[in-house]
Amino acid sequence: MAKIGIMPPQRTGPFAGPATFMNVPFSTNPAGSLAAILGVPFDGGIHPTRIGARSGPASIREQSLLVRPFQPPHATYSPLDRLNVVDCGDADATPSVVDESFEEIEAAALCIVDAGAAPLALGGDGMISLPLLRAVKRRHPGLALLHVDAHTDTYRGDGNATHDRYNVATTFTRAAEEGLVDLEHSYHVGARGPVMMADVFEHTREKGYNLIDGTSLFQRGLVETANDLREKLAGRPVYLCFDMDFFDPSCAPGVCTPTWGGASAREGLGFLRALAGIDFVAADINTVSPPHDVAGMTAFLAGTVAIEILTLFCQSPPILENIGARSS
Amino acid sequence: MAKIGIMPPQRTGPFAGPATFMNVPFSTNPAGSLAAILGVPFDGGIHPTRIGARSGPASIREQSLLVRPFQPPHATYSPLDRLNVVDCGDADATPSVVDESFEEIEAAALCIVDAGAAPLALGGDGMISLPLLRAVKRRHPGLALLHVDAHTDTYRGDGNATHDRYNVATTFTRAAEEGLVDLEHSYHVGARGPVMMADVFEHTREKGYNLIDGTSLFQRGLVETANDLREKLAGRPVYLCFDMDFFDPSCAPGVCTPTWGGASAREGLGFLRALAGIDFVAADINTVSPPHDVAGMTAFLAGTVAIEILTLFCQSPPILENIGARSS
Amino acid sequence: MAKIGIMPPQRTGPFAGPATFMNVPFSTNPAGSLAAILGVPFDGGIHPTRIGARSGPASIREQSLLVRPFQPPHATYSPLDRLNVVDCGDADATPSVVDESFEEIEAAALCIVDAGAAPLALGGDGMISLPLLRAVKRRHPGLALLHVDAHTDTYRGDGNATHDRYNVATTFTRAAEEGLVDLEHSYHVGARGPVMMADVFEHTREKGYNLIDGTSLFQRGLVETANDLREKLAGRPVYLCFDMDFFDPSCAPGVCTPTWGGASAREGLGFLRALAGIDFVAADINTVSPPHDVAGMTAFLAGTVAIEILTLFCQSPPILENIGARSS
Amino acid sequence: MAKIGIMPPQRTGPFAGPATFMNVPFSTNPAGSLAAILGVPFDGGIHPTRIGARSGPASIREQSLLVRPFQPPHATYSPLDRLNVVDCGDADATPSVVDESFEEIEAAALCIVDAGAAPLALGGDGMISLPLLRAVKRRHPGLALLHVDAHTDTYRGDGNATHDRYNVATTFTRAAEEGLVDLEHSYHVGARGPVMMADVFEHTREKGYNLIDGTSLFQRGLVETANDLREKLAGRPVYLCFDMDFFDPSCAPGVCTPTWGGASAREGLGFLRALAGIDFVAADINTVSPPHDVAGMTAFLAGTVAIEILTLFCQSPPILENIGARSS
Amino acid sequence: MAKIGIMPPQRTGPFAGPATFMNVPFSTNPAGSLAAILGVPFDGGIHPTRIGARSGPASIREQSLLVRPFQPPHATYSPLDRLNVVDCGDADATPSVVDESFEEIEAAALCIVDAGAAPLALGGDGMISLPLLRAVKRRHPGLALLHVDAHTDTYRGDGNATHDRYNVATTFTRAAEEGLVDLEHSYHVGARGPVMMADVFEHTREKGYNLIDGTSLFQRGLVETANDLREKLAGRPVYLCFDMDFFDPSCAPGVCTPTWGGASAREGLGFLRALAGIDFVAADINTVSPPHDVAGMTAFLAGTVAIEILTLFCQSPPILENIGARSS
Amino acid sequence: MAKIGIMPPQRTGPFAGPATFMNVPFSTNPAGSLAAILGVPFDGGIHPTRIGARSGPASIREQSLLVRPFQPPHATYSPLDRLNVVDCGDADATPSVVDESFEEIEAAALCIVDAGAAPLALGGDGMISLPLLRAVKRRHPGLALLHVDAHTDTYRGDGNATHDRYNVATTFTRAAEEGLVDLEHSYHVGARGPVMMADVFEHTREKGYNLIDGTSLFQRGLVETANDLREKLAGRPVYLCFDMDFFDPSCAPGVCTPTWGGASAREGLGFLRALAGIDFVAADINTVSPPHDVAGMTAFLAGTVAIEILTLFCQSPPILENIGARSS
Repeated sequence: MAKIGIMPPQRTGPFAGPATFMNVPFSTNPAGSLAAILGVPFDGGIHPTRIGARSGPASIREQSLLVRPFQPPHATYSPLDRLNVVDCGDADATPSVVDESFEEIEAAALCIVDAGAAPLALGGDGMISLPLLRAVKRRHPGLALLHVDAHTDTYRGDGNATHDRYNVATTFTRAAEEGLVDLEHSYHVGARGPVMMADVFEHTREKGYNLIDGTSLFQRGLVETANDLREKLAGRPVYLCFDMDFFDPSCAPGVCTPTWGGASAREGLGFLRALAGIDFVAADINTVSPPHDVAGMTAFLAGTVAIEILTLFCQSPPILENIGARSS
Repeated sequence: MAKIGIMPPQRTGPFAGPATFMNVPFSTNPAGSLAAILGVPFDGGIHPTRIGARSGPASIREQSLLVRPFQPPHATYSPLDRLNVVDCGDADATPSVVDESFEEIEAAALCIVDAGAAPLALGGDGMISLPLLRAVKRRHPGLALLHVDAHTDTYRGDGNATHDRYNVATTFTRAAEEGLVDLEHSYHVGARGPVMMADVFEHTREKGYNLIDGTSLFQRGLVETANDLREKLAGRPVYLCFDMDFFDPSCAPGVCTPTWGGASAREGLGFLRALAGIDFVAADINTVSPPHDVAGMTAFLAGTVAIEILTLFCQSPPILENIGARSS
Repeated sequence: MAKIGIMPPQRTGPFAGPATFMNVPFSTNPAGSLAAILGVPFDGGIHPTRIGARSGPASIREQSLLVRPFQPPHATYSPLDRLNVVDCGDADATPSVVDESFEEIEAAALCIVDAGAAPLALGGDGMISLPLLRAVKRRHPGLALLHVDAHTDTYRGDGNATHDRYNVATTFTRAAEEGLVDLEHSYHVGARGPVMMADVFEHTREKGYNLIDGTSLFQRGLVETANDLREKLAGRPVYLCFDMDFFDPSCAPGVCTPTWGGASAREGLGFLRALAGIDFVAADINTVSPPHDVAGMTAFLAGTVAIEILTLFCQSPPILENIGARSS
Repeated sequence: MAKIGIMPPQRTGPFAGPATFMNVPFSTNPAGSLAAILGVPFDGGIHPTRIGARSGPASIREQSLLVRPFQPPHATYSPLDRLNVVDCGDADATPSVVDESFEEIEAAALCIVDAGAAPLALGGDGMISLPLLRAVKRRHPGLALLHVDAHTDTYRGDGNATHDRYNVATTFTRAAEEGLVDLEHSYHVGARGPVMMADVFEHTREKGYNLIDGTSLFQRGLVETANDLREKLAGRPVYLCFDMDFFDPSCAPGVCTPTWGGASAREGLGFLRALAGIDFVAADINTVSPPHDVAGMTAFLAGTVAIEILTLFCQSPPILENIGARSS
Repeated sequence: MAKIGIMPPQRTGPFAGPATFMNVPFSTNPAGSLAAILGVPFDGGIHPTRIGARSGPASIREQSLLVRPFQPPHATYSPLDRLNVVDCGDADATPSVVDESFEEIEAAALCIVDAGAAPLALGGDGMISLPLLRAVKRRHPGLALLHVDAHTDTYRGDGNATHDRYNVATTFTRAAEEGLVDLEHSYHVGARGPVMMADVFEHTREKGYNLIDGTSLFQRGLVETANDLREKLAGRPVYLCFDMDFFDPSCAPGVCTPTWGGASAREGLGFLRALAGIDFVAADINTVSPPHDVAGMTAFLAGTVAIEILTLFCQSPPILENIGARSS
Repeated sequence: MAKIGIMPPQRTGPFAGPATFMNVPFSTNPAGSLAAILGVPFDGGIHPTRIGARSGPASIREQSLLVRPFQPPHATYSPLDRLNVVDCGDADATPSVVDESFEEIEAAALCIVDAGAAPLALGGDGMISLPLLRAVKRRHPGLALLHVDAHTDTYRGDGNATHDRYNVATTFTRAAEEGLVDLEHSYHVGARGPVMMADVFEHTREKGYNLIDGTSLFQRGLVETANDLREKLAGRPVYLCFDMDFFDPSCAPGVCTPTWGGASAREGLGFLRALAGIDFVAADINTVSPPHDVAGMTAFLAGTVAIEILTLFCQSPPILENIGARSS
């Protein structure tokens, strides 16, 4: 029988299938899917108090059972069906062991990309975007970045040690240096609140990125900003990096570096919805840290962001083309 | 002595009285009161993860000790005094046993209605509105519904089993079929977010209801919408069904089917306040689920909603008439 | 690389497999396994305050990642390997909908039993044992019951309604009436604390069961009692029903009907270990209720009970025979 | 219908009665009852970190719904019925305002004692025993004290300020000075762990009390100690002061001054049971501090202690006499 | 090495220094500093359910490790450096013992003020502002008050007992009577929600204060209101009293008297920022109550408020002058 | 004034001193002290779910305010006074960055040892013992180890990567290889429960250690085992490594690798007390993991262990000699 408020679980004989994102089928072969979920249970390890994003994928999957697929009036179809979404399980990352884990993450993402599916990665902390970009870049040259976050993650990190170079604050400094994204068409959106490095905004721009900080964002308006972005990114393949601390801690307390003054849930989800039409080809949702979460609410909000992103995938021109191809 | 921030408890000889909503007198005889509190510790039982609204009334009563009666500058009287509010205790419902419980709930509500008092029921999940409407309808033919909720609760539910027909998603499908409300003048306000049934909005309208979904509500504005409603409902007896998930999970995490993107507390309370003047004759506040609440905050917000509704009762023309009659 | 304190997850290409009990392989085909995990996400629905065992299987699987396989000095092998344990996922139960769910649970258990594997079911509340017994009984006539619990679950329940006849307090009254177990060789162990029915102990014995109540158990000693049981049950196929409330709430707070004065973890696990040699053919672990748990500790203890039971399976003569057959 | 695991609530017409201890009737007139519950929502206010026992009575009443009345095999009757227990509500105490509150508490207790009922007070912190003793002493001259606690509460407190003289550490220093108890036959049982005053044990004895400290208690054995006490207190009216911190923090974390190394639940409840036959005439259960409790477990254990004490009342010779008188 | 997202701790030989606000140096000699942190672990004791602000300073210090110093683009300097902030530790207050504690608090604040530093006190409940004002007033005659709070704290409190006169609801009634502030230029901002005294707003104005209630505040706009205040307070020494319940409970649940409908974090922090230029000379942040907080979020928001206030100090003309003097 | 149940805080002028262990003076110069507290906020980073011991020192200090100094009848002096204990703050460790942190930890410990004080380190996870032993070994050749833990921490860890060689499971494999302890006189006590490596007990003994596993320990008795150890370790300098998971998770849930079946608080504290007379020269208490703790209880128990260890120091012959020297 249909249970109220929940997708019917996958059936496999007399059994219900394994716990996956919104009960989509578990499969390590994404061929035939236009989007695939990838858990990335990795965090870097050196934050003095807030650690634990390694448990993020499990928590998001658990809370995703509260999320539903249809979004009337604007989306009366299920993106799970339309994209034939599968959950590929997790990349085999080892928390705080950077090099090895980056290789594993890249390999898993590559497997999805190579199958022609758009990966939606569930972190894990903000470091995961670097190996994910490395994989996506291979198939999508000219990749632009849309980074929605309370922080720019563009600190210098110019020490020699692994943890100096690779940590949650340096992801996009490294991405720029590695040439992973088309800097001129890459945007950091929403950086706000007190920071550790006086000139971090200048440094972001020096690296070549565009920066729309929180003050600008909220003054101009989130939907208006989304409209601008849609225009500027039109026709380019875009990687959407969504850090849950873009939201205010009142709706997303369980993140790595919470910062007050962020988007409400309605604002944040509305912003995402207004991005429809951009050529998204991959995305991640990062920094859900379950040990610091409250009653799973950050993970549940991340699950809601995920269904919005899958809906965005359904409206992304390159994916739309594949939907059309498949149904014809 | 007066304790700071709290109503003096009822005194009964050397003892303080039992725990009631805001320390109003406990009484199972509502005669002489213009409004009466009724706890309805019932939930339907089949939600796969979120259960527990059965404990809602106890939690709301506990948290109501943080709520106070006066609301200057717009209400410098206490609705508790003006309406001579009593707390009738709970209907004798058994969680998840539908038929028996519906009879008990209806009987208890009828007792209040027959005494000439407006019932304010504290749920319990959203199923409780059905037996409550059955009772209120008896005394108030032509009853209109104002349903404030993140969901319409108008799924089809056309299976044969009790739980297929009666569950939190079908309450107002059944209410329509039973002819309990004047459909033409009944409104669902605030439905938002992802849902399970692609055409649930269409179905709502097919059943005869008016629907103001969340997108429309927030675009038009909450106060403006309230103004419209006040006009459209003028002169009709109205049942106010208030589901706490109308609020965003950031202020009401402990509900049965949380949905991101809802009203902030200020918006939601302002919306209620703007409804003043409608002919409210009964109300319920439902879906507080204490096992999923955080530090009692959802129950505390429900208590705040309750004092707003009691204040609305004080401004409801049919009740106002009785207030006048009593004081003259 | 090997992660400290955790089984390496299943690898499936570049991905790690789905979340299962202790990361054993997920498979809905238990053929070739000597034991199989079955989640049973069902609870009956009518307890007025403590509900939520429906989420037990998910929580036990999550916490099982803290459990390890070897138990030196007495078990230097991994029961996971020796029994080739798989996790079959969940029976497709709907919380509080009794009849349908019982059929689903029985069907899933039957599938495991028919494949020649011993089912280890993870509840779910105490009602799940009834359909499980129905399935196991089919293959193991002469089945004896060893019921370890703070309660006998032998209330009369002689009303006509489904919830009167089938609820957590009547499971073994019904099992006796249905002839599912060899009553003369069936034991309730550990009933203690205040109860609802004055003569429940008498009624247990009237039904034909043996009863070793908590007072007797703790006076005689847990290991001594286990020795007695081993002797009395020798040579008979035994179903082990383990209710987590056998433990004191200080180690298992998250259960349906907590009762103070139970076994400490060391006592309870020692008792289990002392049962080695009994012909166990099936088992369940029930009443983990995550909404009432504290930091997952009850689920974690249930996971530890599970590895003990799997170790008991390795020492159960009928299973031992199969182990021998397979390895020869 | 009967709900599983819970006393049927009081019915009053179509309504269920107010929340009371184990759903016994609410009544501010204890005449006709042999025992009466009295909540004492008071704490003294100066502990630097652990405050909140003021909310104890509400929490114990809430959790008492998990407690049941019968205790087979040794008590197959319900003490609630046998003693005709009522819940009188709360004394009208104001947290941290000592003088006024002590008067209110004494007056409420006196009302119960004067009606011929044995008061069972639910605290509140350990200060409440002083005004309670003042009331009980009036009717029971020659009153002996049995104080079960991790602390002796016999610090000097010889400053002049109210809070120096009256606080949780000085209750029984003051009781001795006021001549409220027969010191020669009064016992402190269970003092253990690190303390603030090097010679507090000497001071206890200097005041005239008997002291059985934790080391002695656990070495001699709890039941053996109870047997000794039963003998020494035979024939004297006894006030039982039970501080929940007698239990180890693993079962009672939510107390004012937790101290590791206390009794397990089984030990503590067994100790109480072994006191049967003493002439108890009044009792209190104190120091449940809900803001520091974990999932209500301390309050739930306090509720279990309460049913044990009510069972002790049923076996107390002076009360037995009244039971006999009433039933004949 | 630099840890990500955190100030390097003070080094003292091979050791890191004690836990202070944002790791600033601990020093009980504020000479040479332009601002100093003072913990005030005091609460008054008579609130019936919400107590515990006594633990506020410790919790704010702990959570302040999540706060960072720079606020680009508008503040690319660290106020910690610019003001040479030290943490003086705590005033030696005893919770609920009013007279003694007020003397201690005044003495500690005076020590800071006399050293020429601006005190930033971390409460503690709202009563602490009274002794703080007494100290600040000595050095800053003509002191104006800017009181940002959901309540006016101007109840009558005209009983004779200490707790009637001095409690969290009467602070500014007493401040007015003691002549501590220039009433004509003193403002209460943000009072909202239900209250205990029908005419509390009238009484506030009768006492001589200006009142901008919540309804006015949110209608006019927070930044617009701040602009007005900046104009009206220009050139006068101002004490900023910031009660954390100005924020909505969705961002600040752990306060003494939570009230729904308050400022979001973004609104509240934006309001503070818009006050830049006022001649602030002292401030307190009060009513963080850790036992009622959720995952430390209220304390973390208080820490964020603190860095905003320190930034305001950097822009306060009288302090700016000293900054200039020091650097020249 | 003296607050109930708490050491008076250090006074420094009108201020109370910084938050330290049990309010002892903060000092980075341990000269003149016979024991010194050292926080070690370090954990290794690769455990997949349980991380966070980095926050242990802060949490233990906070909870230590519930601990008191005197332990009558067996210790009527305060070890804080007798040893002139100071709190040196924290070693400057960076979580999960092994090499650098080990150097910092060793340097800090060396500073204490060189001053002639016995270090009592508060972890941090079990890896911290290795650098601590390196420091202590320098001054105390012939150092023996007494390791009290649910695990032996003697896994092979023979990979090449830093995290393979140095992690919580390999500490004492490395210590043996580095020759830090007199293996013949070094003991692992209490290893129990399921493990990851089938032959870990054999490997422990192969490395040269003595092993008293949990089964042996609880069968022989804790006090009896302590007596044996006292005899065998007589006259040798001993490092006490105390892992909080020696306790059962019912009293110490907040550890890194919880394992059911451990010591109760009374057993564990009694075991420690029975070790009096051993020549302890240094100690650590490790693996308190606050994100996984419940209401601070593990940290509070760790604080209680700390006062027991300081009392052991007072009875350690080499320290006793110094106490004598100082007081003469």
